[in-house]
Amino acid sequence: MCVLGLGLIGGSLLRAAVAAGRSAWGWNRSGGAVDEARADGFDADTDLQAVLTRANDTGAIVVVAVPEPALDTVLTQVAAHAPDCTLTDVVSVKGSVLDAVRRHGLADRFVGGHPMAGTAHSGWPAGDADLFRGAVWVVAAEDDTDPDRWTQVARLALDCGSVVVPAGAAEHDSAVARISHLPHLLAEALAVTAAAGGDLALALAAGSYRDGTRVAGTAPALVRAMCEANAPALTVALDEAIALLTDARRALATAGSTEALVDAGHAARQRHDTLERWDVTGVEIGAPGWAGALRDAGRRGGAFRAL
Amino acid sequence: MCVLGLGLIGGSLLRAAVAAGRSAWGWNRSGGAVDEARADGFDADTDLQAVLTRANDTGAIVVVAVPEPALDTVLTQVAAHAPDCTLTDVVSVKGSVLDAVRRHGLADRFVGGHPMAGTAHSGWPAGDADLFRGAVWVVAAEDDTDPDRWTQVARLALDCGSVVVPAGAAEHDSAVARISHLPHLLAEALAVTAAAGGDLALALAAGSYRDGTRVAGTAPALVRAMCEANAPALTVALDEAIALLTDARRALATAGSTEALVDAGHAARQRHDTLERWDVTGVEIGAPGWAGALRDAGRRGGAFRAL
Repeated sequence: MCVLGLGLIGGSLLRAAVAAGRSAWGWNRSGGAVDEARADGFDADTDLQAVLTRANDTGAIVVVAVPEPALDTVLTQVAAHAPDCTLTDVVSVKGSVLDAVRRHGLADRFVGGHPMAGTAHSGWPAGDADLFRGAVWVVAAEDDTDPDRWTQVARLALDCGSVVVPAGAAEHDSAVARISHLPHLLAEALAVTAAAGGDLALALAAGSYRDGTRVAGTAPALVRAMCEANAPALTVALDEAIALLTDARRALATAGSTEALVDAGHAARQRHDTLERWDVTGVEIGAPGWAGALRDAGRRGGAFRAL
Repeated sequence: MCVLGLGLIGGSLLRAAVAAGRSAWGWNRSGGAVDEARADGFDADTDLQAVLTRANDTGAIVVVAVPEPALDTVLTQVAAHAPDCTLTDVVSVKGSVLDAVRRHGLADRFVGGHPMAGTAHSGWPAGDADLFRGAVWVVAAEDDTDPDRWTQVARLALDCGSVVVPAGAAEHDSAVARISHLPHLLAEALAVTAAAGGDLALALAAGSYRDGTRVAGTAPALVRAMCEANAPALTVALDEAIALLTDARRALATAGSTEALVDAGHAARQRHDTLERWDVTGVEIGAPGWAGALRDAGRRGGAFRAL
């Protein structure tokens, strides 16, 4: 396995792949992370052409783990030097990556991926071979996805200790807008509204404020990068949340009631808390309609714990 | 001290007052909590007239710890049987309690209170003598508040281990709308919007979803009671949050940017995290303008750790 980018996610993936017994090496643009990785005993280099040529010669999976702005540069090199490799990524928005991969003519060997894992820290030193253990790893199944390459990428995720959830790029992006990007914007709005109450309000702030604003402590650049890369889906989720709050505001001001929103919110959270993950079985990867069948299973809460 | 209502807060207060060496007894409408309190060695009764007459005869502080709907019934009895006692409360919305107290002609002996403490549980068995330790306890200072009675109530809060923050009823209600009631409605809206993404979205939900929806797990009746009792202030806070989200939605859809909201939210949360509580000194309780001076100190983050 060849991982491009040795930040928190890429660096954790290199460690996890090696821990799982795979032959794995990494590339990073800046030499600092490469030096740190080598000092920790890993195989790393700043020569992108060399690591990609090696990947192509050995039939390795190439994993793109660079920030979104570096995507085009890296994909140009992948197309030039690793034309035969299975290509995947760990970027948090799948539609824009899929578009970029198509522009570079790499769609036939690409399988999008998104491990739902992270910490508040970044860079090689923050990496952890166990970062993906028990996490959900979305492995995208589009109608034109190559089934053998899908299986290769899913096995990599399973080797890292993750549970594989199949989904299409568009429905993945809609889902993460709702459960990851919207929470960040609501937390920012709560933090601003609370602080508008002055130091008295902040002095009284307790558990509900702290939980509700925790992710407002995330570095603005990281929050902006993920929210803005998923603008279309996040706009839809924002519209729904604003409509719910506007209806609640009207009911509170006119009838003194918050019943509709509070009952619906409680029921929705209960749904989450009681949701049981089930194992996808009976779908033969590669049989006619396999990708649609996987997406359907993912939509209903199905996942793979083994393959 | 005589506490009316032996639920989580009243029951904890009875325990804390006794632990602090005070003579203290309690009343509860239903006999179940009274039996439980007695079994735990506390002095409790279901005879409201008797406990209030005893409070009047001994000059005890009377603490109202009943749910908002029971307020009128209890205040009628207080006016009849404990006309001389200092009266305080532990209800989470101060403006409506102050209005009720004024209707019952009890304003001259009333000092509003609100300990910012609680757990997910309720009832006598959930009580804890240490519930208030380290918590903020708002003790309301209005222009017509009796300074000696204010000091009595503040000393009770300090005896329970709390830090006393002075505030007016109206600014208290505005503050808790922002830091406690708004977080609940945002959590409900997030839970509903996430669940609208189906089981796929819920299966991908991780830290930011869990933190952002935690309080949506609170019993709907409790959330509704506190939000609806503070409707005017909560409507203002909701309007501000909706305006922030609507502006962010427009900037995201038209310019692809979330910069304004994300930067403001991060700065606001930093403000909370770096806020230092300071000790109010130099205000002589009872000197001309003392209540205004205390409110001003509270507004700027001041508090009492001793008196």
